[in-house]
Amino acid sequence: MTFREQLMDYASRTEAALDAALPLRDCPQKEVVEALRYSLLGGGKRLRAALLLAFYQVCGGEGEKALPFASALEMVHAYSLIHDDLPCMDDDDLRRGKPSCHIAFGEATALLAGDALLTHAFDHMLHADMEPQRLLAAAGCLSRAIGVYGMIGGQVMDLSNESSPDITEQRLKDTDALKTGALICAACEMGCILAGASEEKRTAAKEYAAKIGLAFQITDDILDQCSTTEELGKPVGSDEESKKATYASLYGIEEARRISAELLTQAKESLRAARMDSPFLLDMADYILERKH
Amino acid sequence: MTFREQLMDYASRTEAALDAALPLRDCPQKEVVEALRYSLLGGGKRLRAALLLAFYQVCGGEGEKALPFASALEMVHAYSLIHDDLPCMDDDDLRRGKPSCHIAFGEATALLAGDALLTHAFDHMLHADMEPQRLLAAAGCLSRAIGVYGMIGGQVMDLSNESSPDITEQRLKDTDALKTGALICAACEMGCILAGASEEKRTAAKEYAAKIGLAFQITDDILDQCSTTEELGKPVGSDEESKKATYASLYGIEEARRISAELLTQAKESLRAARMDSPFLLDMADYILERKH
Repeated sequence: MTFREQLMDYASRTEAALDAALPLRDCPQKEVVEALRYSLLGGGKRLRAALLLAFYQVCGGEGEKALPFASALEMVHAYSLIHDDLPCMDDDDLRRGKPSCHIAFGEATALLAGDALLTHAFDHMLHADMEPQRLLAAAGCLSRAIGVYGMIGGQVMDLSNESSPDITEQRLKDTDALKTGALICAACEMGCILAGASEEKRTAAKEYAAKIGLAFQITDDILDQCSTTEELGKPVGSDEESKKATYASLYGIEEARRISAELLTQAKESLRAARMDSPFLLDMADYILERKH
Repeated sequence: MTFREQLMDYASRTEAALDAALPLRDCPQKEVVEALRYSLLGGGKRLRAALLLAFYQVCGGEGEKALPFASALEMVHAYSLIHDDLPCMDDDDLRRGKPSCHIAFGEATALLAGDALLTHAFDHMLHADMEPQRLLAAAGCLSRAIGVYGMIGGQVMDLSNESSPDITEQRLKDTDALKTGALICAACEMGCILAGASEEKRTAAKEYAAKIGLAFQITDDILDQCSTTEELGKPVGSDEESKKATYASLYGIEEARRISAELLTQAKESLRAARMDSPFLLDMADYILERKH
């Protein structure tokens, strides 16, 4: 299988699992189920799910047992986007090329849809068919990664950065390491945990994750400045408009591209040193650099 | 120990555990930690925590091992109140006699504080010192109870009830069974699960919970109509003002009181039948009927 085929395979298995996890049926809660399915399904590259499944595989994990955890990651990701788009947060009307959840369903329903997705991510893991110790370690890894000193903490820092355009490079890195990095890191580590991998492999997976997470964010900033709204599926230039400090504004586009490429080289090194250098995980690094949206 | 002393003891142990679980320290996330501590600590009767701890005890559980789960319940309760008070939901400015979280800290911080509390509830349980099977069953019981077909589902129904003042008694009961009942039910059942109680006892605990949960909601409606703002710590008459259907408006005050008393008699019966009729749990039923706020 080529990298693209493998990525599509991971994505479609995750998509099917998500669709089955939260089916639409006639019930008094139908509207919020519709809203959360609107934000959860049919979009996104499922990179987080793919990373978990790929690390699970490269560490010797077999079968579909890791799929509920990959699904949980995507539920968490979708919840964070719904809440992030709300008027009191980033106030974004567009997401993945369509109206964001609160535009389509109203604020109250969007708020509850986000809450429901976060809750269901844990519900889904807690009821998964998996050895209890591994289940607890993987779910505990995720809960730590997305809490107040993880992803949510990054959102807090991001909000306060917006009112201070002259923040330092370190502050920007610290923010992104939590806001987007923590979930990517959890994805990679959870794959290892679920397969019962050694501490050495877990550490290497986290190193790889930190590097590609930062590179991912840097390329996001570059895309925000260089793409069209059509390519990106969300408004471009929004960072510049809000006077938000970005890697693109800190380094300039060319230097940002160079740093990003350097990070991905280091990420591949971490994999090789721990003998986890599957073609898919190596190609994933390149994919992040070359993606258009 | 009298009932009040036992209730105070459960509450103060839970309060100390909550305080220790989310300490305030100097960090970039300080504001959201302050906000969540503002809503989490120093208020509330900790009825849900007390129910969990009391069922744990009556089923033979020993020591402090159930405390992280009692704390998790209170974190979930606090998160639900913060999000419920937001402008896009009930838009309440006052909670427990003080400005609600978004009034004190702003909407964005309140939203994230709620998200953080929900996340931390799971984090806290997942890292608790407890036999893995019991931990998974208890946390899984909670996640199911507060999801889209549980507590969140009740909030969805409650929102749609507001625009239809002539809803049926059954619809009102179904709404409350989820919106407030599901968490109370989880509290009682989790106490049993953590102590390794039989299926029979778990079923009886759920029956007890359903009865006191409904009685709790009925007395809430009565209090809303009969108390002063000072006694209640939140605006009174708000239900009437919003033309919201309540048990008080459906039945009238006297009949509502009678139904409530009847439910509590049935609740006690369930306990006796399963030999879980500890003085504390029996008195809890009376306490719910007689409370003033």
